[in-house]
Amino acid sequence: MPAMSRLERTELRQPDGRRVTLYGPHQPAPPGYQAPLAQPGIYERRWNPLRREWVLVAAARQGRTFLPVRSRCPLCPSTGEHSTEIPARAFQLAVFENRFPSLRADGDRSGRPEAVASAGVCEVVVYTPEHEGSLATLAPERVADLAEVWADRYRVLAARPDVRYVFIFENRGEAVGVTLHHPHGQVYGYPFLPPHAAAELRAGSGTGCPICAQLDRERRAAIRVLFRASAAVAYVPSFARWPYEVHVVTPAHLPCLLDLSRSARRSFALALQRVVRAYDRLFKTTMPYMMVLHQRPTDGRAHPRAHLHAEFYPLLRDRARLKYLAGSESGAGVFINDTLAEETAARLRTLMA
Amino acid sequence: MPAMSRLERTELRQPDGRRVTLYGPHQPAPPGYQAPLAQPGIYERRWNPLRREWVLVAAARQGRTFLPVRSRCPLCPSTGEHSTEIPARAFQLAVFENRFPSLRADGDRSGRPEAVASAGVCEVVVYTPEHEGSLATLAPERVADLAEVWADRYRVLAARPDVRYVFIFENRGEAVGVTLHHPHGQVYGYPFLPPHAAAELRAGSGTGCPICAQLDRERRAAIRVLFRASAAVAYVPSFARWPYEVHVVTPAHLPCLLDLSRSARRSFALALQRVVRAYDRLFKTTMPYMMVLHQRPTDGRAHPRAHLHAEFYPLLRDRARLKYLAGSESGAGVFINDTLAEETAARLRTLMA
Repeated sequence: MPAMSRLERTELRQPDGRRVTLYGPHQPAPPGYQAPLAQPGIYERRWNPLRREWVLVAAARQGRTFLPVRSRCPLCPSTGEHSTEIPARAFQLAVFENRFPSLRADGDRSGRPEAVASAGVCEVVVYTPEHEGSLATLAPERVADLAEVWADRYRVLAARPDVRYVFIFENRGEAVGVTLHHPHGQVYGYPFLPPHAAAELRAGSGTGCPICAQLDRERRAAIRVLFRASAAVAYVPSFARWPYEVHVVTPAHLPCLLDLSRSARRSFALALQRVVRAYDRLFKTTMPYMMVLHQRPTDGRAHPRAHLHAEFYPLLRDRARLKYLAGSESGAGVFINDTLAEETAARLRTLMA
Repeated sequence: MPAMSRLERTELRQPDGRRVTLYGPHQPAPPGYQAPLAQPGIYERRWNPLRREWVLVAAARQGRTFLPVRSRCPLCPSTGEHSTEIPARAFQLAVFENRFPSLRADGDRSGRPEAVASAGVCEVVVYTPEHEGSLATLAPERVADLAEVWADRYRVLAARPDVRYVFIFENRGEAVGVTLHHPHGQVYGYPFLPPHAAAELRAGSGTGCPICAQLDRERRAAIRVLFRASAAVAYVPSFARWPYEVHVVTPAHLPCLLDLSRSARRSFALALQRVVRAYDRLFKTTMPYMMVLHQRPTDGRAHPRAHLHAEFYPLLRDRARLKYLAGSESGAGVFINDTLAEETAARLRTLMA
């Protein structure tokens, strides 16, 4: 695959069958490496007929690794003393199947008639061998490599018959529930079209793309645009649900990362990094956030409205206060934003390097 | 109104125009009472065309009262030294228009073309004059009174032309973002049908009620039912999204609290209290939760499928760990439950008094 030409790829298998992919140069696992093993557990999904949504049941995750001390970090390179998730003494970027997944093709089932067998996959993307830092502190070349890895994971998972939607995302910060500090993101391969993706694809009028329409509105209004790069426009959408919510959209109507050139992927990923850097300047603290990428479903249908974009949901509304999803958001589905998108955009714009 | 016959009602107005309703006997405000005043702010709503949802903008709430010390609690009775939100030296139950609302009919506007004027109302329901305690510790007669107050607020707000959906709910615990500890709940009068209510009313097949159908499935499966009372059945739904999620449903297909007899309302409210008490026993700590009531919209249409029920979303998945809404839930709309509904139901059932 041309996109991968500069980033060598090594496929490994752990004894429990989980795949590990190393991107870039690496050194083999130290002698005596002992792979961590996936635990048995119930994996299935159940249908919520009130909201017409699938709920994932993953009843082995309660024991997952929780904020380990640095010397026990499972995302660092392995050493003679400490076997991690990465069977390598050195690596650049690594992707492995999560040992505590939400989706798993071969899990046990509860046997309940309400349940459907699980399918799909959950991967962890380790951005760097360095334990400290974040997407904000990666060197530009490593950000470009990360974009290549994302594109490759989209390609690999899209080819799986049990994956109908590839969801690349990052949870950062303990306030989002992150259990590991080492810089990393995740990829879920859902066996169905998730509700939020489905809603976007239903939106818009006629054959028009709702992302293109919003981008056009934001460009014309101008007041909420943060910056324009060659392959990305960043703005606080007029309808921001989170204070300091930011969307990053490709100016061209392109459905997924594979439709961008290598240099456009680099530009897009660097735009994401720019947003994270501004977040960390905003309250002079590491902003907890979710970053999600929406791309074309991989269910074999055309989806002409699909338009690659990223959405950031930052959790802080000021230095010490979190935005909570409480009764109105969780029970009625109505978000309350205590800020004006025009004002948060103005503030973020001054923080863009 | 017959339902109110045993609970006298006193309507007051604060100098800033906000309504206060005292239920039951009370003593007037102390001399020198100084009403707190609503602050100016931007109140509007904006349309999210990607999800086809309204977002409420309430840009005066950032300064709202945040976990005051007990002597400064704004929900306690007023004294000569401390004027609270309740202009009474003594009261039983009180409802007042929130000084930091999410919806307000007379707020300022940003002037942005993307924005629509706000409408609707946000009320605070103070369960008791006692600062300590919670719904779990209220005497049965006070719980019955609370059910009457809920029914009355539904009736009063339903009569407003700008209120199309009356949403009664309670956020409890700092982990849900609660800023006041005094036992209280809230009522939102939305000027539109919220997405989750709309989804429920769209669900079901033909003219069938999806709540009746789920209740029937749960009764037949039996394994997730927690208890049955005269006017309430409580269960962990098969598709629980939160660990220990509980739904409380009226056995009869009744659209709202006003369709229940006084004794049925009492039974329904006591069932809610029973759930909260079990939650507090579960991890031997005060369980943070959201409790939401879904009832018939008040938009003048018939909504034959509407069926009164309560949903509890408790946040703890074990004594020290919260369930977070992270990338999958917030960015894709896919909930991950680390527990089996059958097992959490079994555990909760043993804790039901």
